[in-house]
Amino acid sequence: MTQLELAREGTVSKEMRLVAQEEGVDEEFVRQGVAAGTIVIPANKNHQIGRFCGVGKGLRIKVNANIGTSPDYGDMETELEKLRVAVEFKADTVMDLSTGGDLGAIRRAILRESPIPLGTVPIYQAGIEAIERREAIVKMTADDLFSVIEEQAEEGVDFMTVHCGVTRSAIERLRRQGRVTDVVSRGGAFLLGWMVHNEQENPLYEQYDRLLEIARRFDVTLSLGDGLRPGSLADATDRAQVEELLILGELVERAWEAGVQVMVEGPGHLPLDQVAANVQLEKSLCKGAPFYVLGPLVTDIAAGYDHICGAIGGAIAAVAGADFLCYVTPSEHLGLPNPDEVKEGVIASRIAAHAADIVKGVKGAWEWDQKMSQARKSLDWEEQVRLCLDPDKARRLHYQHETSGTACSMCGDYCAMELVARFLGTAPEKC
Amino acid sequence: MTQLELAREGTVSKEMRLVAQEEGVDEEFVRQGVAAGTIVIPANKNHQIGRFCGVGKGLRIKVNANIGTSPDYGDMETELEKLRVAVEFKADTVMDLSTGGDLGAIRRAILRESPIPLGTVPIYQAGIEAIERREAIVKMTADDLFSVIEEQAEEGVDFMTVHCGVTRSAIERLRRQGRVTDVVSRGGAFLLGWMVHNEQENPLYEQYDRLLEIARRFDVTLSLGDGLRPGSLADATDRAQVEELLILGELVERAWEAGVQVMVEGPGHLPLDQVAANVQLEKSLCKGAPFYVLGPLVTDIAAGYDHICGAIGGAIAAVAGADFLCYVTPSEHLGLPNPDEVKEGVIASRIAAHAADIVKGVKGAWEWDQKMSQARKSLDWEEQVRLCLDPDKARRLHYQHETSGTACSMCGDYCAMELVARFLGTAPEKC
Repeated sequence: MTQLELAREGTVSKEMRLVAQEEGVDEEFVRQGVAAGTIVIPANKNHQIGRFCGVGKGLRIKVNANIGTSPDYGDMETELEKLRVAVEFKADTVMDLSTGGDLGAIRRAILRESPIPLGTVPIYQAGIEAIERREAIVKMTADDLFSVIEEQAEEGVDFMTVHCGVTRSAIERLRRQGRVTDVVSRGGAFLLGWMVHNEQENPLYEQYDRLLEIARRFDVTLSLGDGLRPGSLADATDRAQVEELLILGELVERAWEAGVQVMVEGPGHLPLDQVAANVQLEKSLCKGAPFYVLGPLVTDIAAGYDHICGAIGGAIAAVAGADFLCYVTPSEHLGLPNPDEVKEGVIASRIAAHAADIVKGVKGAWEWDQKMSQARKSLDWEEQVRLCLDPDKARRLHYQHETSGTACSMCGDYCAMELVARFLGTAPEKC
Repeated sequence: MTQLELAREGTVSKEMRLVAQEEGVDEEFVRQGVAAGTIVIPANKNHQIGRFCGVGKGLRIKVNANIGTSPDYGDMETELEKLRVAVEFKADTVMDLSTGGDLGAIRRAILRESPIPLGTVPIYQAGIEAIERREAIVKMTADDLFSVIEEQAEEGVDFMTVHCGVTRSAIERLRRQGRVTDVVSRGGAFLLGWMVHNEQENPLYEQYDRLLEIARRFDVTLSLGDGLRPGSLADATDRAQVEELLILGELVERAWEAGVQVMVEGPGHLPLDQVAANVQLEKSLCKGAPFYVLGPLVTDIAAGYDHICGAIGGAIAAVAGADFLCYVTPSEHLGLPNPDEVKEGVIASRIAAHAADIVKGVKGAWEWDQKMSQARKSLDWEEQVRLCLDPDKARRLHYQHETSGTACSMCGDYCAMELVARFLGTAPEKC
């Protein structure tokens, strides 16, 4: 049985119990959320997970880091290093988006090493194998695609992005819409090319029950991909995007009927004032299924610093109800990230997630800030460093300039904390 | 006459004309905003400014970079380098917050070199000179303080932070409030110490007319400082903060009566869902005077990455109506920034400002993103790099991994842009 089925019959599974412990919430709260579909616990029956992760309503906002090779860069060692970095800086999940090298070997190595849930986009492997074996993506068969999905599910992949909503009707809406950047989803582009060339419906849509059967067997959480997500502010919240979301909403209900855990993916590029509306739309059209957003990026012009741009959009989305933030790295729009950029991306998303956790009253979030502020007030630098997201960087920045007293080099002897403590007589021990 | 007085009598000054040109708005729009007090143009009569800057309603969101020495770090050369970096990455103004070395010499050098408006916090110099000459900040006299203000005004400082709202009544509210981090404003701490020790009212409040007379004479824009701003989320929007804002609102009106340009400073540390409320409160209590926010920081725990945290808060504040973002650097809470961190801070704030400009319909903002997206669609890398905030970094990230085709190393041959252009027949020339 899947987590969804267990929850429905009233069972609190080990996974639900561990998620509840980790979040500091009631087991019954988690069980009810999983049963209702507002919480998913990506946990393939064949994957040994060290740190389970619940995604959804009432839980801490989660962060995903994309890793994986491209045809131009990356190898197994580099990707395992990215995995290590992502885990160290507390990504909650990783996705292996490899498209270069031995895809199966890289994925299996990541699965073995990863203590956190792993996601994939099976159409990548299916498309690339079609190029290798049949000379073109468009020569891929539906069976090719489903056999890759089954292979990855059997190996233990915990969640899979499947672009089931890139249907012929959605592509037709896209054509009538007209866009600046058309389709920017790689998986969406693979499918669109296949469908247009073969004049056939998307096999992930047409044979959705087949997909559900595989997902149910291994308890793979489906992440319904937004192949038609906007790739520029100009294309945001347009008819093609919303058409696809309407379809995904229907597919969410079919997944629930089949006992399959499911979440929904969202943009992408959105003007800041459209972020909350996109979250509300998903929650409404998809009946509260967890929402997994990429960024969102609130401007198109921040390449080199898109992790910052994504943190702005991510924080706003999370406060509005998004549950799961896919990080964006400084390399976005420019190239494949290296391990340093993976780190930057994870930290930026974690700041966004935490800013939202505070507002949402997530257990422990406020207390963390309170502790930091108390350490700041008492000029306890070791405690401040310890409480940071990146203690090594905080230590380096603090100690890079010598100081004459107990304050930092920003103010030296003119530290407001010290002055005021003295004048108001509120001096903590260290002052 | 000040810009405010000129605008009121119906004159469009050279400064108003240049601001209007720069913004692509009507001269009369700028004049009316200056006359109404909703726009300020910091421009001391004695400062040769190369790039004028209008701050306020209907204009592009502006970004300030704080530079300046501390007793522990920085010297004239380093600060001039920070100025150069801030200007290169398009800060709209800089503030010299020096508290170490020869304060006058550093300020005058920055004034000479700076093509953009310069702000200061005169209480720093006054307090430090009191320590040097009279052995303690508390021995500073009101005349000492006003003579520093006059000296800096005469030299050409364009705007000055003056913590006029740290009154005895506000300190009393602070005592009754109780806080985690008491007072974190350095200028606020200097004044509070002086007031508590001497049992006297804040001279900047008590002799506000004297301040207005000096400001009017040189057309120094007053930036009414928030000495009691919250230094932690726990202290956000508390009674001490709001008491000070009530006082600042009254002082805004007195400045306008005296023909003096004025803006108001704001937090600081705020939970994300309090940011918009703080902007609305300022706009309401201060009758639409421009709002100049520090960050705001939406969590206390992001030291090392507070520029990202400040970008989140800044974007939300700007969309809500804040006009002017003071940057925060990665060194915030840890030490004085070096030039690299100044650059990081400016860019993060500019992303926040631009994300808001798009939403606010600022002229040219949307078009910039549109151009970038078109360059992206056509895989025109040189144009993409040119349109970035930091072309050198974008170029480095793009070219750090070799690519086999025209796409970037993220997707290589599987670039969605290329695939879709081919399949949909929308290929731009480069594809």
